Amino acid sequence: MNTVELIKKKRDGQPFSTDEINFVVKQYTNSHIPDYQFSALLMAIFLKGMNPTETATLTYSMLNSGKIINLDFIKGYKVDKHSTGGVGDKTSLIIAPIVASAGVYVPMISGRGLGHTGGTLDKLESIPGFSTNLSLSKAKKVLNKCGTVLIGQTKEIAPADKLIYSLRDVTATVESIPLITASIMSKKLAEGIDGLVLDIKTGNGAFIKSYSDSINLTNSLINTAKSFDKEVIAFITDMNQPLGNYIGNWLEVYESILVLQGKIKNDLYALSIKLAGAMIYLGKKAESIYEGEKVAKQKIENGEAYKKFLEIVELQGGNVNYINNPDIYPKPKFVKKVRSVKRGFINEMNTYQIGMASLELGAGRLTKEDKIDPKAGIILYRKIGDYVKNGDIICELHSDYKTKIKSSERMIIDSIKFSIAKPTLQKLIKKIIR
Amino acid sequence: MNTVELIKKKRDGQPFSTDEINFVVKQYTNSHIPDYQFSALLMAIFLKGMNPTETATLTYSMLNSGKIINLDFIKGYKVDKHSTGGVGDKTSLIIAPIVASAGVYVPMISGRGLGHTGGTLDKLESIPGFSTNLSLSKAKKVLNKCGTVLIGQTKEIAPADKLIYSLRDVTATVESIPLITASIMSKKLAEGIDGLVLDIKTGNGAFIKSYSDSINLTNSLINTAKSFDKEVIAFITDMNQPLGNYIGNWLEVYESILVLQGKIKNDLYALSIKLAGAMIYLGKKAESIYEGEKVAKQKIENGEAYKKFLEIVELQGGNVNYINNPDIYPKPKFVKKVRSVKRGFINEMNTYQIGMASLELGAGRLTKEDKIDPKAGIILYRKIGDYVKNGDIICELHSDYKTKIKSSERMIIDSIKFSIAKPTLQKLIKKIIR
Repeated sequence: MNTVELIKKKRDGQPFSTDEINFVVKQYTNSHIPDYQFSALLMAIFLKGMNPTETATLTYSMLNSGKIINLDFIKGYKVDKHSTGGVGDKTSLIIAPIVASAGVYVPMISGRGLGHTGGTLDKLESIPGFSTNLSLSKAKKVLNKCGTVLIGQTKEIAPADKLIYSLRDVTATVESIPLITASIMSKKLAEGIDGLVLDIKTGNGAFIKSYSDSINLTNSLINTAKSFDKEVIAFITDMNQPLGNYIGNWLEVYESILVLQGKIKNDLYALSIKLAGAMIYLGKKAESIYEGEKVAKQKIENGEAYKKFLEIVELQGGNVNYINNPDIYPKPKFVKKVRSVKRGFINEMNTYQIGMASLELGAGRLTKEDKIDPKAGIILYRKIGDYVKNGDIICELHSDYKTKIKSSERMIIDSIKFSIAKPTLQKLIKKIIR
Repeated sequence: MNTVELIKKKRDGQPFSTDEINFVVKQYTNSHIPDYQFSALLMAIFLKGMNPTETATLTYSMLNSGKIINLDFIKGYKVDKHSTGGVGDKTSLIIAPIVASAGVYVPMISGRGLGHTGGTLDKLESIPGFSTNLSLSKAKKVLNKCGTVLIGQTKEIAPADKLIYSLRDVTATVESIPLITASIMSKKLAEGIDGLVLDIKTGNGAFIKSYSDSINLTNSLINTAKSFDKEVIAFITDMNQPLGNYIGNWLEVYESILVLQGKIKNDLYALSIKLAGAMIYLGKKAESIYEGEKVAKQKIENGEAYKKFLEIVELQGGNVNYINNPDIYPKPKFVKKVRSVKRGFINEMNTYQIGMASLELGAGRLTKEDKIDPKAGIILYRKIGDYVKNGDIICELHSDYKTKIKSSERMIIDSIKFSIAKPTLQKLIKKIIR
């Protein structure tokens, strides 16, 4: 097969055969197709698309570039959750212990933050000592012992995805439904799971901003999962404001602790219960999603979910003293309370901008080489629909750098819009597709 | 400026500003934008296009990546011809001496053959001793002395084009009207010319196969030329069969000699007269294209054009003995006469396939590293509209390799279609645009 002819074929809008997809993925992974040809191909795929068969084949091909973890020794249902990413989205930290404590196994492979969104690995690593970099055999032991394990993508898992994702990131070919689908599903299928719950974010803080694109992506993910005989339930959820009230790595761990301890019942709590409920239902520990939600709530009320979280932290090397007593965690050099200079109802938040403000404070990275400050971030005291008077505290900024506080304060203020009338609130869960 | 944001902008179909185009061309030429980003950008340009302003700016930017040859010391009109390339197209070799002998200067920078088409440089270099690799100062002297010079693209001329063209060639981004326009015009404008005659090939042997695309390319080239205040006349000409009767490097020089000596009056002669006429008219040595053609014919009849050709060959180091006495030129090891096994009128020739057969015989190259055999090629005895009986000789194949003769014979036979009724002949010159 000739690479230029294949680029031409996709450029002219023709579908690839199975052999052709296997060829380009294999040759690129083996460095036999150079980056400059593959990036032209990625742009052609971005602009001309791939049909569902091509997408499933691409997923299969990327999955098979590496190992599929064999979890057959675990006698129980294995389920994971995947979120397409947003600002303040820390549900993984809450869901894994809830679902594991309900007797369903959760082998969870997560990513790092990039751009305006945070990553589960960075959040977990803000817990002193916590390691997300376990060997596969160690990870299997942890999973077997406590019912869940939270690790990063290893070298063995979908190496083609790692290579292709890096190239997409620098060639403006990220937001493509077939490419996103294959990237997500090749990794999730490698986990050896039986079922998957999807949290597809839509709104101004999501990667896929429009609702119709979110539906398309969801259908593409479900089609692909089903073609691999996996059970799947997808939630399309609102990302027109940050999820919960804490943004930044340690701050998000802290909020997760509060939710797991039953001290907070905000939107983060509601979404976590919903997603955990669906996972418990898929894992056959409840008759319906609704019954699953009841189990999830119970696991918080009876303290089992929190206990499970402490167990995970301990097993992955984290210091549980910081969990049991968050006050001993190092404090940022500067904390600035941002007060409103307007009055009215908050009716819009530019969530992307708030994520970028958090990055500015030190909580995120623009390039993969950037270092993260686990203490940095934002505590949001007010969200959409809240009434604010002149001088009321809207949020709190945490950083080691005074200049960063100044620049991010401006970003936050510019990102919030007010109205005189109380706005109608967006539904948190917009649609369930299965 | 951020390269990923610029790729995204073009990917989403937005036009670039002048600064943005200058940025990407400059940064790529300086190796500050890597190949893999530039190839994604090229694919986005290929699929989303560029408007006339962007195309002219891209041309300007590529032109200014190198030197513009200053020919002000030459007191006379300077004109060049550019052809988009086809099979058997050797008009440059005929036109340059005709127009120079009419007192109009022709500084001609040509390219090499690639794929199914030949290149003027390869044809000239089939003349023993002929050098197309003159220094700029030597080239200026030759031009000043004999009125024309035939050289290749030097390092100083549009280096951005050289880099971008190499990348387009391996990323399936060649056939893009704005990219073709900028590539052609950046080189032609660097020649320091006052006017330009364009020969845009259309048909099954051309790079741009459809007539409507040829019109679009022509308009794009004319718009760009005019935005640089150059006079331009464009001919859209037929490439549904090879031009003339000889294909292959020395064979094409040989046919050019016959035309310049007035011994052949075929389609090659007709097109050469037309193009030369337009150049003589632009150079103000005739009142109209038609009057220019009369001058061109006269220069052949009175022997001045042929004399001028000998002068060029001599000045560029070529051995004129081979021109005056072509019989002494080395002969190929094998010459095969291909005879028809059908009868009827030739009504179709797959010109691309005939070009590829010539390449197969040794006359062309698939990659830039391939070596060319100057003796190899095809003499076509019959063309479209000719009546052929069983056993009639259709063509003659020249090669040093018997196996190549066999494979190319099959290609030629497959490329020719017959009909019972005499076909209507295509017009050689389909349109003149100015």
